[in-house]
Amino acid sequence: MLADKLLSIQSHVASGHVGNSAAAFPLLLLGWDAEFVNTVQFSNHTGYARWGGIRFDATHLEDIFSNMRRNGLLRHARMLTGYTPSPEALTCVKELVTELRKNNPELVYLLDPVMGDMGRGMYVNPDVLPIYRSMLPLATVICPNQFEAQVLTDMEITSLESLRSVLRKLHKDHQVENVVVTSVALPDADVAHLGISNTLPNGEPAMLLVGSRARPDNEPEMWYLQFPELGNYFVGVGDTFAALTLARFTEGTQIPDAAHACGEQVPESPSECTLPIAWAVALAVASLQAILHRTLDFMKTHAEPGIDPFGDSNDLDIEDNVKVMRLRELRIVQSANDILHPTVRYRPQWVPN
Amino acid sequence: MLADKLLSIQSHVASGHVGNSAAAFPLLLLGWDAEFVNTVQFSNHTGYARWGGIRFDATHLEDIFSNMRRNGLLRHARMLTGYTPSPEALTCVKELVTELRKNNPELVYLLDPVMGDMGRGMYVNPDVLPIYRSMLPLATVICPNQFEAQVLTDMEITSLESLRSVLRKLHKDHQVENVVVTSVALPDADVAHLGISNTLPNGEPAMLLVGSRARPDNEPEMWYLQFPELGNYFVGVGDTFAALTLARFTEGTQIPDAAHACGEQVPESPSECTLPIAWAVALAVASLQAILHRTLDFMKTHAEPGIDPFGDSNDLDIEDNVKVMRLRELRIVQSANDILHPTVRYRPQWVPN
Repeated sequence: MLADKLLSIQSHVASGHVGNSAAAFPLLLLGWDAEFVNTVQFSNHTGYARWGGIRFDATHLEDIFSNMRRNGLLRHARMLTGYTPSPEALTCVKELVTELRKNNPELVYLLDPVMGDMGRGMYVNPDVLPIYRSMLPLATVICPNQFEAQVLTDMEITSLESLRSVLRKLHKDHQVENVVVTSVALPDADVAHLGISNTLPNGEPAMLLVGSRARPDNEPEMWYLQFPELGNYFVGVGDTFAALTLARFTEGTQIPDAAHACGEQVPESPSECTLPIAWAVALAVASLQAILHRTLDFMKTHAEPGIDPFGDSNDLDIEDNVKVMRLRELRIVQSANDILHPTVRYRPQWVPN
Repeated sequence: MLADKLLSIQSHVASGHVGNSAAAFPLLLLGWDAEFVNTVQFSNHTGYARWGGIRFDATHLEDIFSNMRRNGLLRHARMLTGYTPSPEALTCVKELVTELRKNNPELVYLLDPVMGDMGRGMYVNPDVLPIYRSMLPLATVICPNQFEAQVLTDMEITSLESLRSVLRKLHKDHQVENVVVTSVALPDADVAHLGISNTLPNGEPAMLLVGSRARPDNEPEMWYLQFPELGNYFVGVGDTFAALTLARFTEGTQIPDAAHACGEQVPESPSECTLPIAWAVALAVASLQAILHRTLDFMKTHAEPGIDPFGDSNDLDIEDNVKVMRLRELRIVQSANDILHPTVRYRPQWVPN
């Protein structure tokens, strides 16, 4: 095992930033000697509605993995998986994780169970769902959104209490130690119980992320992070978030010097959650907010006359949609300093009992 | 055109560092919003003598390029190409460069004509040679080794004078503005004419790199850089060198802040060459020497008992060869600081007339 080796299995696009093409720079910059197995090579992400390239089949992936195995190259400290649309490819990935965990019981594996969202529903082959369920015990951290947490547990999240039940099921039945529900909608009264409101003090719309760590009795130990919702324009945000979170997670194994944040973890109040996963998330969100602000600025300053980069892209013809998609590509490389040294404005808090 | 967009077309390996898997981190770290089209996806480089994966055919590459074209994504300021073993794929790349140069006459294109070396001869399909020749007028910089410079010009390099003839032909007949011959062997008397010797003052073996820029009359304006030859153990050195050189080259178009070196360009003597290409090379070599020293240290400290990482790998059975190859993988990610802030110990000098 090499302490700084990380394996990331995701999509690759020639232009723009999703999948491995979003994860690569944050992982490398934060000191991980990251290795990338690409599950597709496309010209650009599919939000452009026009793209070229190929999806790699399970045979190709198995060929890559088996030769890495024979060459003694499966010696990773960390692993990251995201969008894997085909059940065959996902099964192949599952076998690989099983092997990596056997090679290294301390493996830290972040599984992002990309399947859909509340707006669009399921956008992958539904046959991946049972495979994802069977992979959950292999994961150290999972980061579903509300939709994915619901389908994984076959339960609805309509309140803090039902969210707690979902988290309990993930800890207890699926043996996941750390769950990060990346966005969740809760009734005003439940949010008030957290001591916050569904909008930020300045009136801006907010995102609510809720995490949970399994107690020894598998009861959820819940925390949350609220931060500005900067618009639903972007593609690749979840991939970037997952990479940053895994890169920053200090638990289990040592992490590269560059991934250690300086100072911020000193709690400012007793309500602050000091779990390593919560701080990894807070640092990831801080970097991501800077990337999104930089992208919003680019959209404002680089739009062609007649193109509204903030409009609903579903209303556009393909040529205008493509122009808008180009403007909305995440400004990740331009945000190196914010990835290395984020300003943490939003700090994780315990959910009161 | 976007000032920080760079397109790199090379191999991708899941594990280790050659092709795009060597170029990616230096390019991104130095601030380039680099985009990667992979010509292969292999488990590891072929020096392991065992690998899995696929070469992508020209149809796949053309599918990627044509959709980038249709989506207005061919707007790069810089381009880098390396190992492209198939004539069909190389033809496809040639058409793309032609188009990128049409889209942006200021395009800075570094062509690394990877074909072979003095020890092994030609290791690609010889049909690529005429295609490379026809691509030379598209390039801003080429960085052949001695073997490749010889086959491109169909001339031998046996002296400073014959080297000058090769460079003249590249400038005059092939319209290349900047040539960097990455390593060249010259007779002692010719090296003495440069004011140096074929070994370093401390007795260590030296590498001699000779560059040339076309004067208005296409006569070569020659410079050189001598630095320690740290052993012939490594794979991916040329790919890393090419990426660093392109990233650091200040001529033609603006470059990202991170790629600007601070201070070192002030010449210490009148014999120092101040051409931007020579300084890009000096900075690249400085970063690379640090990467190689770090790799040598890793080889020393991480070898298993009974494995000599410095031995001739041709003498080893495949299992031991694989162990040696793993030890020799370049320590690129661990050298972030040396990539950003190299210490320039070897400075480019003019070749006396």
